[in-house]
Amino acid sequence: MYKITKPTLLLDKKKAIQNIKQMAAKAKASGVKYRPHFKTHFSKEIGEWYREQGVTSITVSSIDMAVYFASHGWKDITIAFPVNVLQIDVLKHLAKQVTLGLVVDSLDTMNLVHSEISDTVDIYIKIDTGYHRVGIWHENVAEVQALATAIKKPHKFKGLLAHFGHTYIETKKENITSIYNYGVKALNTLRNELSNDLIISIGDTPSCSIVENFKNIDEIRPGNLVFYDVMQTEIGSCGYDKIAVCLAAPVVAIYPDKSEVVVHAGAVHLSKDRLQDAAGQSYFGQVVELQEKSWSKPLEGCHVKSLSQEHGKITLSKDQMAKIKIGDVLGILPVHSCLTANLMKEYMTIRGEKIGTMNG
Amino acid sequence: MYKITKPTLLLDKKKAIQNIKQMAAKAKASGVKYRPHFKTHFSKEIGEWYREQGVTSITVSSIDMAVYFASHGWKDITIAFPVNVLQIDVLKHLAKQVTLGLVVDSLDTMNLVHSEISDTVDIYIKIDTGYHRVGIWHENVAEVQALATAIKKPHKFKGLLAHFGHTYIETKKENITSIYNYGVKALNTLRNELSNDLIISIGDTPSCSIVENFKNIDEIRPGNLVFYDVMQTEIGSCGYDKIAVCLAAPVVAIYPDKSEVVVHAGAVHLSKDRLQDAAGQSYFGQVVELQEKSWSKPLEGCHVKSLSQEHGKITLSKDQMAKIKIGDVLGILPVHSCLTANLMKEYMTIRGEKIGTMNG
Repeated sequence: MYKITKPTLLLDKKKAIQNIKQMAAKAKASGVKYRPHFKTHFSKEIGEWYREQGVTSITVSSIDMAVYFASHGWKDITIAFPVNVLQIDVLKHLAKQVTLGLVVDSLDTMNLVHSEISDTVDIYIKIDTGYHRVGIWHENVAEVQALATAIKKPHKFKGLLAHFGHTYIETKKENITSIYNYGVKALNTLRNELSNDLIISIGDTPSCSIVENFKNIDEIRPGNLVFYDVMQTEIGSCGYDKIAVCLAAPVVAIYPDKSEVVVHAGAVHLSKDRLQDAAGQSYFGQVVELQEKSWSKPLEGCHVKSLSQEHGKITLSKDQMAKIKIGDVLGILPVHSCLTANLMKEYMTIRGEKIGTMNG
Repeated sequence: MYKITKPTLLLDKKKAIQNIKQMAAKAKASGVKYRPHFKTHFSKEIGEWYREQGVTSITVSSIDMAVYFASHGWKDITIAFPVNVLQIDVLKHLAKQVTLGLVVDSLDTMNLVHSEISDTVDIYIKIDTGYHRVGIWHENVAEVQALATAIKKPHKFKGLLAHFGHTYIETKKENITSIYNYGVKALNTLRNELSNDLIISIGDTPSCSIVENFKNIDEIRPGNLVFYDVMQTEIGSCGYDKIAVCLAAPVVAIYPDKSEVVVHAGAVHLSKDRLQDAAGQSYFGQVVELQEKSWSKPLEGCHVKSLSQEHGKITLSKDQMAKIKIGDVLGILPVHSCLTANLMKEYMTIRGEKIGTMNG
């Protein structure tokens, strides 16, 4: 096996491709477009794995990310984030290069897009169906209509876009399905009021993982599922066997009396995203054993108890404690793979191949 | 003023230099060495501001950070993190270039340092005085003595090193002073058992900010105080006027009915470190108004309520809500400046000068 000497984000390419394939197949079976969100992996190389599955349209979360993927051959990019009008010059340029989708929920923004961008842009109106982060509340039909009226040539009112982000705090399939059904119904009701030419685009990995057949929608944009993570296992989107990234963390201190070890893996590697265990205790990742070109399932009684900037404190079971040595490397399945990938800036596949991202 | 178009970490150089100067003066008045922790800023250029205040010895939190600062002229570097023995080859090389301080709390590690590093290294035994993250518990005198005995030539047993990290959850000066006093007493008791030639080195910004005269210690290693942050104001280490970094965040969506705006400033900019307000609600930063070459004090009734990967949701007061427009830029004082600096990778001074870091 390759040699780990410091915190390293391991990537099981086979699992990631399997996750992509599975969603691509599901989308195809339902007749919806799969426009994956690339904010999870940030990587031109990983982008190619999607291309091999027939994906040609993508979603990103920032204008800079759109520029990065446009420069690596992607020709159909939706920026699923409210338009940052201060970067309108960059958008003007992008609109000349690619089929650019912009998400809008305000008249001021739409007017600025009209006055500054002369090439056609696909406009999606962002609709809130319960997450309450961004978008126009789906029942405010008049507001949606007023905004729709402001979308004029050369731009195209392409569709209604929603993100059911409130699925991320659920842990029961029926609750996730119910959020999904409510959202899809709301979006269809709204489409009926506007125009049947509009597409309906939805996001969120939990819905897309749990719902078996997509009906009455046209496009799905899940991103996280390429890697999944511990949060998604808690939600019920996947099993541990589908998690495709694992932080390799050198053991730097051992405290048998406390059943604790300290690893070089802190908030600058994993992020401070956390979950709570059954006893209400926060934890920052699940501990696994690294194996030749793989890793184990989570070790029972072992978890990442606290993080500081560079330190990770791990509680180990008696069995694990008995065999651990300074200089061993433990694996940590991250709570939130998107933030971990952003911090780590590159991956190493379990075959020892380095994969870069837009961050490094 | 310089033009902000996307999330940008503003740095008030004058405040940062004032913070450095103040600590350098306090250390000098107490006759202790100021060995600042550079894990807060990660920047060779900011390092030079310390050099101008007479600082020649520094602290870092990883071997890679030691390599970075060594390559920028620092000749006396302590790595205040348990030795990652998997990078021993890098340490071997560093020990030839600089006065290298290593922190050890295990015999296995010390034996490996002996077998692999032939140039002299200053060894500090890490002592736990209550934080319980790393180190040998200060009352385990026999364990400390056994480790001390294992430190042989060419290496030098330089001192006892502690980090009173448990001050970070306190908000009362008397509690912080009491943690400091307990720790200093414990370290002195231990030094008396070992050798009076040893130095005592302590860290933590709260103690170093609050204690007026350092007695019976030899070295202080605070880092955060170059920038401070909202967490440190909560602890009582500083007032808001001393916070030297502020994230400039473009307003991308406005919801008057909810008194909310959404800014481009998420977990990939600020980190997920959070605090709780008086009502027990989490918040991720304090909102300020950006001014010509400065920023205001925190705006009353305004705070960062939630963060996702790229979105920050901000609650605004009625007054602020009435005047905010899409494309305005709000300032956010970070909860934890070290993690924000790590994520942002570069600074822009309020005079428009870019400053890089080891990350970009």
